[in-house]
Amino acid sequence: MAEGARRPAAGIHRTRVRVRYAETDRQGIAYHAHYLVWMEVGRTALLESLGFPYRRLEEEGLVFSVVEIHCRYAEPARYDDEVEIETLVGELRSRSVVFRYELTAGKRCLATGETRLLAMGADRRPRRIPEALRGALQRFGAG
Amino acid sequence: MAEGARRPAAGIHRTRVRVRYAETDRQGIAYHAHYLVWMEVGRTALLESLGFPYRRLEEEGLVFSVVEIHCRYAEPARYDDEVEIETLVGELRSRSVVFRYELTAGKRCLATGETRLLAMGADRRPRRIPEALRGALQRFGAG
Amino acid sequence: MAEGARRPAAGIHRTRVRVRYAETDRQGIAYHAHYLVWMEVGRTALLESLGFPYRRLEEEGLVFSVVEIHCRYAEPARYDDEVEIETLVGELRSRSVVFRYELTAGKRCLATGETRLLAMGADRRPRRIPEALRGALQRFGAG
Amino acid sequence: MAEGARRPAAGIHRTRVRVRYAETDRQGIAYHAHYLVWMEVGRTALLESLGFPYRRLEEEGLVFSVVEIHCRYAEPARYDDEVEIETLVGELRSRSVVFRYELTAGKRCLATGETRLLAMGADRRPRRIPEALRGALQRFGAG
Repeated sequence: MAEGARRPAAGIHRTRVRVRYAETDRQGIAYHAHYLVWMEVGRTALLESLGFPYRRLEEEGLVFSVVEIHCRYAEPARYDDEVEIETLVGELRSRSVVFRYELTAGKRCLATGETRLLAMGADRRPRRIPEALRGALQRFGAG
Repeated sequence: MAEGARRPAAGIHRTRVRVRYAETDRQGIAYHAHYLVWMEVGRTALLESLGFPYRRLEEEGLVFSVVEIHCRYAEPARYDDEVEIETLVGELRSRSVVFRYELTAGKRCLATGETRLLAMGADRRPRRIPEALRGALQRFGAG
Repeated sequence: MAEGARRPAAGIHRTRVRVRYAETDRQGIAYHAHYLVWMEVGRTALLESLGFPYRRLEEEGLVFSVVEIHCRYAEPARYDDEVEIETLVGELRSRSVVFRYELTAGKRCLATGETRLLAMGADRRPRRIPEALRGALQRFGAG
Repeated sequence: MAEGARRPAAGIHRTRVRVRYAETDRQGIAYHAHYLVWMEVGRTALLESLGFPYRRLEEEGLVFSVVEIHCRYAEPARYDDEVEIETLVGELRSRSVVFRYELTAGKRCLATGETRLLAMGADRRPRRIPEALRGALQRFGAG
């Protein structure tokens, strides 16, 4: 960035889920794979807030396929916890996008993670992310 | 049945699943909704044993849609239990079929249940179950 | 009921879930076992609305174990549908309770169902539902 | 390693799962979070093959908690695919272990991944992995 330039604070999208009984395991905590589902809830809500509900994207022939995930677990989520999902856009390329997440319950950080999604057509061949969507995603960009 | 007639013992299909950690809940037992997944494993294996793998049925345009389920839970399935799924055909109509199940672990009866499936085309409109499949299903009929 | 008596309209509890991508299957609709999870979301929210959050009940040694489920599926729930879960108390005994559900999306009825839960202690032996909870549950009783 | 020494080829544990209908999503492929469940099936089977079934470890007060996951998805797993899970031990410390996985279907590589597990007591405080288990795990060590 040029000297003196001011980058506006990156937008962070926030949404919430309650931990369901079905999501717990016999350790009494949320089973780790469900965090990926919550991350999906986060990026879906982010897309919807931008005016690009993912359902409509698919209807128009744009499919996002998860090609990489990474998650670090800090403290366990427990049954009935209200989990806040913070989502932002970590990296935006012509055909892929990385979403970053932080999951918290109250002041406890539960996990941080990233997912890389590849834009494809209905035929599962890579395609470009439409310009209008790319522009919108930058509003939640990490810079 | 006519007097003196002999009905061959109904076939019962048997297959097994191990209870996964992901399937347990914080009561330390398998979460009840997963039993429906195991029942599906049971009827899928039954269909395959008859030479009608469900994947191929769908590829050929026949979809089975679950329209009713009923399950009575007796004893809880626990983590790592080997669950035996007994499946048979309880009722066979032109456009629907009822599968019946008994789930056991060792000598413990875990649950009994039924699922009614409606035959549909890819357009989700009801259609007849093909004769060859109907005939095959009778091999596991409850009589 | 005695002639002329007026039974107040039964309370119905309402809550909502959005169909997650993870809950769809390759027919493009919500997989049938997830309806049981949504029903649990419904009765959990009902209990919380009565001042008896289920998490606290368990902490105090009262466990509800699902002993029977029944569900009739009408129309499929689709990805991103907002599903309204109507829950009421269908039968209330000293040691068990039946919840009844109707799931709708807009004007479409998706499914109706019942679940019977048995009250147990942490030792999984049957016990009575506490009077205060029984009294509260009657507010959502079917009469 | 000393010059001339020969390290025996690292053991790789193999087990298999069939992709269940419940595990597919509306893209017609297995939903990405289920790969984590299959990886758990892989390491559970590895532990059992070593004479340390995980169920017994927990009964004896040793809990493995997933603290980090990483997965790269190559080709989609499809309904009814037989997925081979190759598991090996990538890093073995006094209180944690990394398992590495490769998932394949026929000749197609579906995904590779790693999970880091932390050894804890029933009180969720870190503890050492018992020597006997550490020794056994080295049989599947990546070297």
